[in-house]
Amino acid sequence: MDPVNLGGIFFYLCSMLSKNKIKYLTSLQVKKYREENNQFVAEGVKLVDELLKSNFKITEIFALKEWINKHASIRNMEVNEISLTELERISGLKTPNHVVALVEITNQQINVNEIYSDLVIALDDIKDPGNLGTIIRIADWFGINNIVCSVNSVDVYNSKVVQATMGSIARVNVYYTDLNKFISNAPKDIKVYGTLLEGENIYQKELSEKGIILIGNEANGISSELISLITDKIHIPSFANNNNDKAESLNASVATAIICSEFKRRIGF
Amino acid sequence: MDPVNLGGIFFYLCSMLSKNKIKYLTSLQVKKYREENNQFVAEGVKLVDELLKSNFKITEIFALKEWINKHASIRNMEVNEISLTELERISGLKTPNHVVALVEITNQQINVNEIYSDLVIALDDIKDPGNLGTIIRIADWFGINNIVCSVNSVDVYNSKVVQATMGSIARVNVYYTDLNKFISNAPKDIKVYGTLLEGENIYQKELSEKGIILIGNEANGISSELISLITDKIHIPSFANNNNDKAESLNASVATAIICSEFKRRIGF
Repeated sequence: MDPVNLGGIFFYLCSMLSKNKIKYLTSLQVKKYREENNQFVAEGVKLVDELLKSNFKITEIFALKEWINKHASIRNMEVNEISLTELERISGLKTPNHVVALVEITNQQINVNEIYSDLVIALDDIKDPGNLGTIIRIADWFGINNIVCSVNSVDVYNSKVVQATMGSIARVNVYYTDLNKFISNAPKDIKVYGTLLEGENIYQKELSEKGIILIGNEANGISSELISLITDKIHIPSFANNNNDKAESLNASVATAIICSEFKRRIGF
Repeated sequence: MDPVNLGGIFFYLCSMLSKNKIKYLTSLQVKKYREENNQFVAEGVKLVDELLKSNFKITEIFALKEWINKHASIRNMEVNEISLTELERISGLKTPNHVVALVEITNQQINVNEIYSDLVIALDDIKDPGNLGTIIRIADWFGINNIVCSVNSVDVYNSKVVQATMGSIARVNVYYTDLNKFISNAPKDIKVYGTLLEGENIYQKELSEKGIILIGNEANGISSELISLITDKIHIPSFANNNNDKAESLNASVATAIICSEFKRRIGF
């Protein structure tokens, strides 16, 4: 495809999606194919705008004419004008939203020294894509730059995760590693906070400015081998009127939000 | 179907689901049919156990033999033993979980005096079933007994809402009404808290023990006519390092969780 010069703006314009391209884009819904090709898909006006501003490398864009007209300054990137029907064919959303981007997966090395010097969220086998996406959005809101996931956690490039981050994936680093090693290797002065039923009331407990906030799996909580690495057991108390008949737990992302809120409000601005 | 006496326990046992029954159960995925028949469907071991303990009236149960054996003390209720294949046909879950219950919808009258004497969550057009279900679970955790929804909010008997409550639907009252009237008619001393960008930092603001916590729609926030009824504008501050490049907002249920946590931790236990 030859580059086109439109009003001085240099980009590639193609039309008519090939069957192979459609097949390729939809194949990236599956982790195996994302890993083979080192690419993932992000959709929608807001999310793609956030990625365009970020360090992520977008390799190709598929968008309606309207979107392309509004993004005339995009350079050195293959931009494909597609019809609404084509958008519907490649979109994973119920309501496709103007643009689909093909993005390169960046396999960053964990900079443990940087991570240990701040608050970091560690996720022990979070399985629900909505939860991971929401936790990334929470981390972004509370200025927590790093999330370390156990290797069996849901993939951050799963399209439901990407979409649920509402763009925060562009600003928060998400790593996958052996959590046991990651926590065991932390310097001695790094506190490891984990929510357990027998933990101390988080509202009354002293909380530090750096440390690891460990969040457990949705159904099983924190795994036993990681429980032994917790230095500070915390608990969000229930305020239910009837102690015998109340919610058993909070959703994993909701618990993360309340914990991050407690850590950060103490530190101040 | 004749009642069966098994070891002194009197209940109805039927088998083989009719096509009409399957059609009826799946029709209840649609609000129109739930309203016509005044019934909704709840699934899974935990949720049905919570409903059995609650004031909800379960009219019929469809369960695997294993579940029935464990619930031998159930009385005066039609219990249908079904096969796994039948369960899969009537279930709305990806992974069907032993039991499906047909539950009566109870149209409770709002007791405004009771509601105004405590904290109440008011939802302005919450559309996402997962958000409503999660907010009901949060209310249950924080001992908030009542949620008042605008009439255009998602239906609480939507199966995704019911499932996301994880059983808390059995303990929290959810009403639908004209929110404008509900808030306008509140006694003068009742504060109306609403999150707005220009609101006061929630961590520094005085919060009362009773009042209305108003949560806006996922995409559009609080509607303009309700904004004018807010007496106390609040805001959850972002702690992002770069103020120009950060998450624009928090998810509606996450914001609700942080707000409820702030209100309740001040009141104490």
